[in-house]
Amino acid sequence: MSEGETSLYLALIHHPVMNKNQEIIGSAVTNLDIHDIARMACTYGVARYFISTPWADQHTMVEELLDHWRHGHGAKYNPARKEALSRVRLVWNLDEIVEQLEKEFGRKPLIITTSATERENTLPWQELRERIGDKEPVLILLGTAHGLAPEILQRADYSLPPIQGGTQYNHLSVRSAASIVVDRLLGS
Amino acid sequence: MSEGETSLYLALIHHPVMNKNQEIIGSAVTNLDIHDIARMACTYGVARYFISTPWADQHTMVEELLDHWRHGHGAKYNPARKEALSRVRLVWNLDEIVEQLEKEFGRKPLIITTSATERENTLPWQELRERIGDKEPVLILLGTAHGLAPEILQRADYSLPPIQGGTQYNHLSVRSAASIVVDRLLGS
Repeated sequence: MSEGETSLYLALIHHPVMNKNQEIIGSAVTNLDIHDIARMACTYGVARYFISTPWADQHTMVEELLDHWRHGHGAKYNPARKEALSRVRLVWNLDEIVEQLEKEFGRKPLIITTSATERENTLPWQELRERIGDKEPVLILLGTAHGLAPEILQRADYSLPPIQGGTQYNHLSVRSAASIVVDRLLGS
Repeated sequence: MSEGETSLYLALIHHPVMNKNQEIIGSAVTNLDIHDIARMACTYGVARYFISTPWADQHTMVEELLDHWRHGHGAKYNPARKEALSRVRLVWNLDEIVEQLEKEFGRKPLIITTSATERENTLPWQELRERIGDKEPVLILLGTAHGLAPEILQRADYSLPPIQGGTQYNHLSVRSAASIVVDRLLGS
């Protein structure tokens, strides 16, 4: 681990996720999801930020984008962005992420989901914060579109409590939700 | 105030701000700054979210965009987005915001800036949280580009401490920074 690096990993899942009609879909990778969450991850020492999509054309697009900022003109124009995007890893699915981390740590990471609604297997913020403090490998899954599909939610060891803002409205962007979750777990 | 509504106000400033060479510039309004911060503001009961830009063509563009989501096809397609964007107010400059709030409350709001670097007039998070809890009108200024220009910073009563993520990297997007700041002040 490099200086300030934690045992927290993030994964942004593009398939399978839900649409507004509660159907299972895949979503397209968006440029700002990559940049915003990578910059936030770098600020807090998130060890790696995985972008998961099963489509080859999406891989081609994301690789081109990452290459611009890591090795192309973007790397010279904005070295801070190069640094942030250096911790992005493009993967095909959740299995690939879990295998990578299992190889690295010799055990499966603790898999945590986030959700706008309360779930049964909820882990309090403070407890997860302590487990990360103890260097336990923790992988947080973030859903795009209208959230993670049931088959992904079922793979989680625990779920974080919904972010409560004191109103009935709960439609945060995944970029806002990721920032708030990581600040609650790693912020000082 | 409606249910869950607080005395916290946000303003996203597009001029005067700094560029990477520390020159004073104006930035363009971006679509996702409007949507992401409005959704977050709605989640936390931020009373209003001001978008400040001195250019008429920017006003025309933002008004068209807001009209689509508040009254056009977008309002039917996504009522939750309509709700979030209903608290956006497009203004010409900081004076206009302060005048509006002064008229409403009979006194000037407490003006707070955010900054990636420590400033002299820092107010602790907990103290600002309590002042908002006491229904004191508080206006937080968020800078686009490379941050607020000195003439804006000088108008603040206080500055919030920089968001520390435990690393040397401090290049959060304004969308992430706004989410983290508001969660720290209003989150439960």
